[in-house]
Amino acid sequence: MSLRIGVVGGGQLARMMIAPASELGVEIRVLAEQTGMSAELAASAVGDYHDVETVLEFARDVDVVTFDHEHVPQSVLHALVDAGVAVHPGPDALQFAQDKLVMRARLAELGMPQPEWAAVTNAVELQEFLDANGGRAVVKTPRGGYDGKGVRVVSAATEAEDWFTALAEDARGGALLAEELVDFSRELAQQVARRPSGEMRVYPVVQTVQQDGVCAEVIAPAPGANERLLEAAAQLGVEIAAGLGVTGMLAVELFETADERILVNELAMRPHNSGHWSQDGAVTSQFEQHVRSVLDLPLGDTSPREEWSVMVNILGGPKSGGLEDRFAQVMTAHPDAKIHTYGKAPRPGRKVGHVNVAGSDIDDAVYTARAAASLFTD
Amino acid sequence: MSLRIGVVGGGQLARMMIAPASELGVEIRVLAEQTGMSAELAASAVGDYHDVETVLEFARDVDVVTFDHEHVPQSVLHALVDAGVAVHPGPDALQFAQDKLVMRARLAELGMPQPEWAAVTNAVELQEFLDANGGRAVVKTPRGGYDGKGVRVVSAATEAEDWFTALAEDARGGALLAEELVDFSRELAQQVARRPSGEMRVYPVVQTVQQDGVCAEVIAPAPGANERLLEAAAQLGVEIAAGLGVTGMLAVELFETADERILVNELAMRPHNSGHWSQDGAVTSQFEQHVRSVLDLPLGDTSPREEWSVMVNILGGPKSGGLEDRFAQVMTAHPDAKIHTYGKAPRPGRKVGHVNVAGSDIDDAVYTARAAASLFTD
Repeated sequence: MSLRIGVVGGGQLARMMIAPASELGVEIRVLAEQTGMSAELAASAVGDYHDVETVLEFARDVDVVTFDHEHVPQSVLHALVDAGVAVHPGPDALQFAQDKLVMRARLAELGMPQPEWAAVTNAVELQEFLDANGGRAVVKTPRGGYDGKGVRVVSAATEAEDWFTALAEDARGGALLAEELVDFSRELAQQVARRPSGEMRVYPVVQTVQQDGVCAEVIAPAPGANERLLEAAAQLGVEIAAGLGVTGMLAVELFETADERILVNELAMRPHNSGHWSQDGAVTSQFEQHVRSVLDLPLGDTSPREEWSVMVNILGGPKSGGLEDRFAQVMTAHPDAKIHTYGKAPRPGRKVGHVNVAGSDIDDAVYTARAAASLFTD
Repeated sequence: MSLRIGVVGGGQLARMMIAPASELGVEIRVLAEQTGMSAELAASAVGDYHDVETVLEFARDVDVVTFDHEHVPQSVLHALVDAGVAVHPGPDALQFAQDKLVMRARLAELGMPQPEWAAVTNAVELQEFLDANGGRAVVKTPRGGYDGKGVRVVSAATEAEDWFTALAEDARGGALLAEELVDFSRELAQQVARRPSGEMRVYPVVQTVQQDGVCAEVIAPAPGANERLLEAAAQLGVEIAAGLGVTGMLAVELFETADERILVNELAMRPHNSGHWSQDGAVTSQFEQHVRSVLDLPLGDTSPREEWSVMVNILGGPKSGGLEDRFAQVMTAHPDAKIHTYGKAPRPGRKVGHVNVAGSDIDDAVYTARAAASLFTD
């Protein structure tokens, strides 16, 4: 009776789709990698998303398949499409999130602003790129990286030697992605929701702060963002969403340079850490929006509820005990803070929750969100 | 690891605890009456809540037991308490929600404003009550009534004859509750959250509109409510919550008379239809507040997010198809309306969902909420 969304992957992004779906009256079914994951509540199946039969079986009773991550192989995605399953985002869009070289090439075709980049297949080519770009570069494995993994800043080609060796041993061959080390003034993120039928909605561009390659803090909208920046980022998001055929939520991670240019850093085709503020700070959260967009329902209002929203991740957790042991302390000290936890065991550096604070005073909101989050990791 | 709440009863009130609990990181486990109920997602057990062993088994792995309804027998509640289970609200509080005669007597002890009332055991006593109260009265079965069931307006004792016959046949004996037919100008509801450790938070008093004994519409705060009314209703709610030892959410249904007195009509010791507006209209929804209060966590801010919030129930459903077939139409026509549905099959008069609208213009909000809800029942 109810509409049903099948989510491949049982992490916190799948988990956070459950609440808005349940409120609306949409059923979420999760194919989890194992038991006890964040989205356990809606885990209707446990299995390997690399296995075509497992995923086809999971998809049999749902209206649409979507994802907690971008790692489902193209062969599995195409098998779903061939079986008549609605898949959002689809394989043609997901390839751009799965392979950073394919993404760079497509964004170049679309004329999107990017760092200088090149596909490098050996140390000689990387050295040439280094020589042409001031002697330093970011080297990335095109596939499988996230949260800083598969990313290395190098100033000599020898520093990527192990990756080139691995490439040489890989029957598929391939190349590494070398990128200009952008001298950015800050990082931003632009989110866009897009329905299969084409309707799009943009969220205001936000400022993100990374620590050790992991998102630590988000302020929405990006402080000091003028109309020009807001519109440029929104326009860029819309062009990428449409140009890559993204359905569901798209996050475009951006560098802002000292001369106020914006350059595309990374893409994510799913709800994204940079949009967690919207749960408490926007009329329609990114998770509700993702649910609506993959079902091809009309999109919701993306307006902020308050002037400023701040999200601070809880990374790691308390030295002893669980996050729940700190609830009372945080709620007492910071009644304005909205606590979100993911049912994950604390481990150093692991994203186990976040805190949202919205209000009219940015300094207060930043202070409160940081203070509340820090009480979970003392 | 996570905190766990066991909810007895699988209806929409249990269902709507799932989203805020999941966001916070609290596990909800539901003992459902049968499969396929509103709270199916969190149904960890299916069984009869009248059965002590079933409920004890269900309660074994949870931190606290709470309820979707007030119908769990006292014997079962006491067995839980005797087994060392935290039960909120507890049996001593719940007796006042389970038996309207016990409630009337206790509220009288507390000096709360009430309609004239009497326990009547036969037609003669009811006729005496009618004669003393203008010839009309409301007669209620003290136990088991809800949404207008077990309630009858009579102008002659003969009209309750079947109920007296049933009483006479019942080995437990007992009486009916006769109440003055209050000439109210409107109905209100006051909600209070109370923790086991005593902390309380009040929501603003709301106006409720009933149709055929079922809540149809709620406006928060009650239009035209001045400080005196807001404070009087809050004070009354606080005194009842404390006086009856309620833990969790308490709703006090009130009559407002033409001369601006308020009289207690009914009590509910759980989240309540009159508080659904808080999901989208208050900083802390009644469902999050119930979760926090039964876990004895610090209570959240009950402030409205907007000047006005309006809730309109979806009663019955569409003539053909399911509620989900109307999502697109409603979202397009009324983007401000927040849709909530309960996964229940449409049936005439049945509460199957509601719509919340919040904003600064009360007329707009009422219009939009009614229009959006009506699209589900055309």
